Amino acid sequence: MKNLALALAALPLTALALPALAQPGDLAALETVADRALAADAIAYGFTEGLTTEVGPRQAGTEAEARGRAWAMAWLKANGFANVADEPFEMETWVPGDIARARVTGPFAQDLVVLPLGDSAATPQGGIEAEVVFFRTFEDLRAAPEGSLKGKIAYISHQMRQAQDGSHYGFAGPVRWVGPGIAASKGAVAAVIKSIGTDHHRNPHTGGTDFAAGVKPIPAGALSLPDAENLERMFARAGGKPVTLRLEMNPRQLGKTTSGNVVGEIVGRNPALPPVLLACHLDSWWNSPGAFDDAAGCGIIAAAAKNVASAGQPLRTIRVLFAGAEEVGLHGSVAYSKAHINEPIAVGLESDFGADRIWRFESNFRESNPDLHARLARAVARFGVANSPLVATGGADLNVVRDQKGALVDLQQDGTRYFDLHHTPDDTLDKIDIVQLRQNVAVWTQVTGILANEQNGILTGNFERTGPDVMGD
Amino acid sequence: MKNLALALAALPLTALALPALAQPGDLAALETVADRALAADAIAYGFTEGLTTEVGPRQAGTEAEARGRAWAMAWLKANGFANVADEPFEMETWVPGDIARARVTGPFAQDLVVLPLGDSAATPQGGIEAEVVFFRTFEDLRAAPEGSLKGKIAYISHQMRQAQDGSHYGFAGPVRWVGPGIAASKGAVAAVIKSIGTDHHRNPHTGGTDFAAGVKPIPAGALSLPDAENLERMFARAGGKPVTLRLEMNPRQLGKTTSGNVVGEIVGRNPALPPVLLACHLDSWWNSPGAFDDAAGCGIIAAAAKNVASAGQPLRTIRVLFAGAEEVGLHGSVAYSKAHINEPIAVGLESDFGADRIWRFESNFRESNPDLHARLARAVARFGVANSPLVATGGADLNVVRDQKGALVDLQQDGTRYFDLHHTPDDTLDKIDIVQLRQNVAVWTQVTGILANEQNGILTGNFERTGPDVMGD
Repeated sequence: MKNLALALAALPLTALALPALAQPGDLAALETVADRALAADAIAYGFTEGLTTEVGPRQAGTEAEARGRAWAMAWLKANGFANVADEPFEMETWVPGDIARARVTGPFAQDLVVLPLGDSAATPQGGIEAEVVFFRTFEDLRAAPEGSLKGKIAYISHQMRQAQDGSHYGFAGPVRWVGPGIAASKGAVAAVIKSIGTDHHRNPHTGGTDFAAGVKPIPAGALSLPDAENLERMFARAGGKPVTLRLEMNPRQLGKTTSGNVVGEIVGRNPALPPVLLACHLDSWWNSPGAFDDAAGCGIIAAAAKNVASAGQPLRTIRVLFAGAEEVGLHGSVAYSKAHINEPIAVGLESDFGADRIWRFESNFRESNPDLHARLARAVARFGVANSPLVATGGADLNVVRDQKGALVDLQQDGTRYFDLHHTPDDTLDKIDIVQLRQNVAVWTQVTGILANEQNGILTGNFERTGPDVMGD
Repeated sequence: MKNLALALAALPLTALALPALAQPGDLAALETVADRALAADAIAYGFTEGLTTEVGPRQAGTEAEARGRAWAMAWLKANGFANVADEPFEMETWVPGDIARARVTGPFAQDLVVLPLGDSAATPQGGIEAEVVFFRTFEDLRAAPEGSLKGKIAYISHQMRQAQDGSHYGFAGPVRWVGPGIAASKGAVAAVIKSIGTDHHRNPHTGGTDFAAGVKPIPAGALSLPDAENLERMFARAGGKPVTLRLEMNPRQLGKTTSGNVVGEIVGRNPALPPVLLACHLDSWWNSPGAFDDAAGCGIIAAAAKNVASAGQPLRTIRVLFAGAEEVGLHGSVAYSKAHINEPIAVGLESDFGADRIWRFESNFRESNPDLHARLARAVARFGVANSPLVATGGADLNVVRDQKGALVDLQQDGTRYFDLHHTPDDTLDKIDIVQLRQNVAVWTQVTGILANEQNGILTGNFERTGPDVMGD
C-alpha cells in the first residue's frame, strides 16, 4: 500500500453501524440477483459478443455507428427496456481513409506500422518525406524554439507505464492530445508519436488530437510501440546522420453528419422521482470493435439495470444512456446535457474503463450523505471493492450530471491492462475476462439497486475535485 | 512429467563416469566463456538488434534480403570471422503486394484483418466476393466432396495450442501447408484460414502454402486469430443465412531472382578435419523483422562461434551458415547441400526456434558415440538442459548433413510462446528475453566448443527417425 493515510481514511465509514433500508425485502432480493450475476451473468457478455460480432467497429458519425444504434435499440427492446429511443445530433465527422503508411527512408530503410490520429490532416498523395526530429518527452517538444520544426516531421516519445488507476494516461496523454498541434505551431509538416499505450504489439493506438484555433492541422499518426522503439534505436545508431521518414495517410473531414444517443428505461414505481442514470458509449474507433472500450461498459450497465428489475420494480426509474460520438470529442455527452439539463438526475454512474474487476468505490456525496455512501460501500465489500477516499468525478458521458452539479458514483475498474488495448485493433472480444466481467455486473447490480430504491434525494454532490475526465476520451 | 519412462531413460547417460578431454585446458577455458555468456552475453543481442533495426524485414529473393546479407557479412568480418562469403543461388520469387483486405459483406458487415500466404495468387482488382464454407478442421475439408466448393471461399479452422516442443505445429500446420490447395482442387475460388498460431492479436500469421502439381493457385490468406473467431461467431449467429466475404490481395510472382547463403568461419588448428556446421536463416517474411525467426538464431550461433574462439583456437573449423530463402521453401539449404555435398561435415547444429531457454539436448549419435553424447549432456546440465531420449533430426537448413547421413545435435528451445509470434508482424526485438537468450549462447558455446575440439570423428548419425523437419518452415 503506497499511501497508508489514504487507506486508513477509508476505514471509518465502512465501520459505521448501518440503518435498515426503507424496503429491507428489496435489499435481500437485490443481493440474490447480484450474487447470481457474480456466478453466472450471461447478459453483459452476450451484449458485448453481439455488438462486436454483428456490428463490429463503430466510428462516430458513420453508417457503422448508426448500425450500432439500431442493434442496441433492438437489444434493449428485446430485453424489456421501455422508452427506447435514438436521440440524434449533428456533428463534424472525420474518417480515417484507407491508406496509412510510414517508411524510414534513411539511413536504415524499413516500413513502420502507423495509424492516423483523429482529426489528422491527409498527406499529399504519394506521401510526404522529411527529416525526423526526435523529442524524448512532451516537455522537450514544448521547449523547442518557435519555427525550429519548419519542414520537419516531429516524432514525440514518452515512457507511459501500466497503472491500476490509469493515471499514466494523464502523464503521457498530452503527447497525443496536443503534441501534433504544438509541432504544427512550430512549423512541422507532420507529426508521429509513440502510441499512448503500454503493450508491445504492432497495433498503433489511435485517438483524438486537437489543433488549437489558428493552427492548421497537419498529418498526425501513431506508431505502434515496437515501431516507435525501433525508430528510436535508429536514431541511436545513425551516428548523427539525418533520419528521414515518408508518411502517407488519407483521412478526411466529411462535414456534418448525424450521430445519436440511445436511451432506454426500467421505469420506476414513482416515475416522478429523478432517475438513476447509467452511462457508457456506443461508438468505437474504426480500427477495432471496441469490446473493452466500450461495448462491455454498455453490457455491464444494461445487465445491471435488467438485474435490478428482476428483483422487483425499483422505486426510481433507471435510465441507460448509450452515448454516441464519445471518442471523437464527447459529442453525445454534450448533446444529452443540452437536451436534458432541466430534467434532474438523482445520481449518475458510468462504465467506460474496460471490463476488469472493480477494485474501489467512490462517490461525491460522502460528506453530504454519509449514510448512503456508507451503505453502498458496505454493500460492495463482499465483491472485493474497497471504499476510496477519493471524490467521484464521473465519466466522460456524464456531462449532464456535472452540469446539474449532481450526485456521482464511480465504480473504479482495474486499469492495469486497459492501455494495452485502448484504441487499438486488439480491443476484441477475446480480451474480455468473463470472471472479471461478472464481478462488474454484480457490483453494478448491487449499487444500482440500492440507488434506484433510495426514497430520499441523493443530495448535491461535492464538486471540489471535479475537472475534465480524461479516462474515456 | 507426462512420460516417466522417457524421463528415466534419460538418466543413465548423464550418470556415466566421464573420460577426460584430449585437451583438458580447453574445457576449463570453455566453461569460463560459457559461464560468462550466461551472465552477460551482448553479442547475440547486439546481432539481433542490429539486423532488425538496420535492415528489418528480409523477404526471400528481394533487395531487402540482399541488404540483410550485406549487413551480416560486414558483421562477421568485423567480428573476426574468416572466409566470409555470399554464395548466391537463383530462385522463383513471390512477393506479397501492398493490398490485403477482407470484409464480411453479409449478414454482418465488418472488416477482417488478413495477410496473404506465400505463393498465394492475387484476386482480381477490386476483390472477389463469394459465400464462405466453414470447415472446422483440416479433416473436414479433406472429406468435402469433389466439386463441392465450386465458386465458394473455403474457411479452414483448427484448435492449435501452445506446446513446449512446438508439436502442435504438426497438428495444425497442414491447414496452411496444403489446405488452400485442397480447397482449390475442390473448386474453391479462394481460401482463408485461421492463422496457424497461438496468440490473440490482430496480426495474421503468414507462411508458405503449397499447391499440388496441376492445381491452379488461388488467393489464399490468413486471418488473425481474433478475426477468425469473429467469423466463426458470425456463422453461429447467421441462422443459416449465407456468410459472404470479399477478399482483395495483390501478391505476385516475380520469376527468378537471386538469393544467397552467407558463410563465415572460425578456422581450426587442423583445417583438414571436417568442420562443425552451425546453421540459422537470414530471411524473414515481409511482415516482420524476424527477431525470433531467425535473427536471434543467427546471433546465437555467431556468438557461440566467437566465444569458442576466444577460449583458444579450436581444433576443427567452425563454419556458420546464415541460409537464405528458408521461409519460402528451404532454397538456401538445398543450394548449400548441392554445392557442398562432397565436403564432409563433422556435425551439424541449427538454431531456428526463437530465443527462449534451451530445455533439452538431443543427438543422433547417442548409440554410435555414447561417450561423446554423454560428455555433451553432462556439460550442459548446469544450464538446466536435460538429456533427451529423442533422436536429433536437425533443422531446416541442415540438408547438407542429412544428405551426407552425418551427425546432428539439436539444442531444443522452449517453444511455448514461439507460435504466438511466428510469421507475424509481432516478431520484433522487444520479444527477446535477454536472460533466456544468454542461456542459449552459453549452451551453444559449451556444445560447440566440445564438438570443435573433438579429435576423433563424430561418427555417422542415426537416421532411423529422420523426416521432414517442420519447425522452421
